[in-house]
Amino acid sequence: MPMETFFSFLEKRVDDCSSLLCVGLDPHVSDLSAPTADAALAFCLNLVKQTAPYAAAFKPNAAFFEVFGPKGWTVLKQVISAIQDESDRMGSMIPVILDAKRGDIASTAEAYAQSAFGKLGAHCITLSPYLGKDSIDPFLTNQEKGVFLLCKTSNPGAGDLQDLLVTTDDGPQTTIVGRSSSIVPLYEHVACLAQTWNTRNNIGLVVGATQPEALTRVRAAAPDLWFLAPGVGAQGGDLETALKAGLRQDGKGMLLPISRGISRAANPGRAAAEFRDEIISIQYELRHSS
Amino acid sequence: MPMETFFSFLEKRVDDCSSLLCVGLDPHVSDLSAPTADAALAFCLNLVKQTAPYAAAFKPNAAFFEVFGPKGWTVLKQVISAIQDESDRMGSMIPVILDAKRGDIASTAEAYAQSAFGKLGAHCITLSPYLGKDSIDPFLTNQEKGVFLLCKTSNPGAGDLQDLLVTTDDGPQTTIVGRSSSIVPLYEHVACLAQTWNTRNNIGLVVGATQPEALTRVRAAAPDLWFLAPGVGAQGGDLETALKAGLRQDGKGMLLPISRGISRAANPGRAAAEFRDEIISIQYELRHSS
Repeated sequence: MPMETFFSFLEKRVDDCSSLLCVGLDPHVSDLSAPTADAALAFCLNLVKQTAPYAAAFKPNAAFFEVFGPKGWTVLKQVISAIQDESDRMGSMIPVILDAKRGDIASTAEAYAQSAFGKLGAHCITLSPYLGKDSIDPFLTNQEKGVFLLCKTSNPGAGDLQDLLVTTDDGPQTTIVGRSSSIVPLYEHVACLAQTWNTRNNIGLVVGATQPEALTRVRAAAPDLWFLAPGVGAQGGDLETALKAGLRQDGKGMLLPISRGISRAANPGRAAAEFRDEIISIQYELRHSS
Repeated sequence: MPMETFFSFLEKRVDDCSSLLCVGLDPHVSDLSAPTADAALAFCLNLVKQTAPYAAAFKPNAAFFEVFGPKGWTVLKQVISAIQDESDRMGSMIPVILDAKRGDIASTAEAYAQSAFGKLGAHCITLSPYLGKDSIDPFLTNQEKGVFLLCKTSNPGAGDLQDLLVTTDDGPQTTIVGRSSSIVPLYEHVACLAQTWNTRNNIGLVVGATQPEALTRVRAAAPDLWFLAPGVGAQGGDLETALKAGLRQDGKGMLLPISRGISRAANPGRAAAEFRDEIISIQYELRHSS
């Protein structure tokens, strides 16, 4: 029997619910009935209850809990426990991706991993790649826990660093200043590194759904990895274009996080079901047009 | 009268205590009398009390508080309040740099800024530059609050991204693949960006004290900026070499964070005084040898 890993758990859940939808749990103060941690809890518990049948994963963003101070961390843990309860009830484990974008070194990274996986009970965390491999290692030692590394994000400033052309030993070589090298955008090099580092099937990449060209390049550089692809809906990313550019050959390999598009809908459960179904129908078309 | 900014506050404190020492508050579980948030509080309060006269700044690392869950956040706030009380008692404000290495976009970055500056009462935060300018902006709007951007870190994996050669329009130009460009390490480009972005005197850079060549290059690229230069002591950085490479022309512009070198000393107050005095003596030598 193959070893269980974070991504084998995720694929099991994806198959159970026929969904690539990742429900974002972002209790923005402006969306709450009151500016309190209790209101954030009620907001999240309602979303979890309504959308669980259609969610391949849940993604709480740490910032919107942290801003409530100690009480916010209590609520975050309660929300993750509620997802666990819902999973138990359905008999299908829904992974929790803590969107925290952490990145620190050595014993500090170990403390963050202990906080996210040990204390809070999340199954996966988003991390910045800027500090390199040893800042990520403490999150990889338990292969049942996973990470999504920031690669190409969907915000306007993403290009400040991520689009810079870097000379590396990856890919097709050309002679640059007398040396045989390849020139690729930084984000593509991050994808190459992640593909190499992923020896335990627990590393994925964050690639904005607003960037079809980047999705195509990253998919070529990292054919096996799962992508977390935010930006559909609120940020203007087109679902079909994104799926076409980023899905793996097996028709999976992408999670589409949606937050406000679901939480602000009159009926969040129905909105989640519709997103799930829209993704399925595009997957079907792509499978039968190729 | 000039507008007060984070770095004008810091310079005032540096002058008040003749110190470039930044005391790290890292309550590693292994260093505590018990594995509890209360023990972390006692550990930090003792360090604050003993070292305050010699500290240009304090730098609590969020991870070592976060790992205690909600109680850890209560303790972090108590520690920051205690530093404020100590400042009031001495009549000289000691800035608190929250070492959190956050990095997220738009409203999420705003929530982190609100958490660090509003709720916790920190004066400055460390941030990752990977998501670009708009991920940093929410931390800059109040110029009395500051940021240190990760530039060149002191860990083994720092080179995975930070040392990559990038083609940019900064610095001396050469022709690369038919286009006039300059090739610099990524970290140097980050320094150029930070120098440009620092229109309100509230952006500094994290540059490892273990990397004298990087300190020299970053100082050339960002002649005005403050550096937070970890790595002296535990990580093997040599204080004199680091100061020589990184100090500004005015003999200031660098904060030297020390954590275990002080917290594990038999007498942390004396250890802090000795670090402070060693820095002063090197500053004196450098001033009189040039």
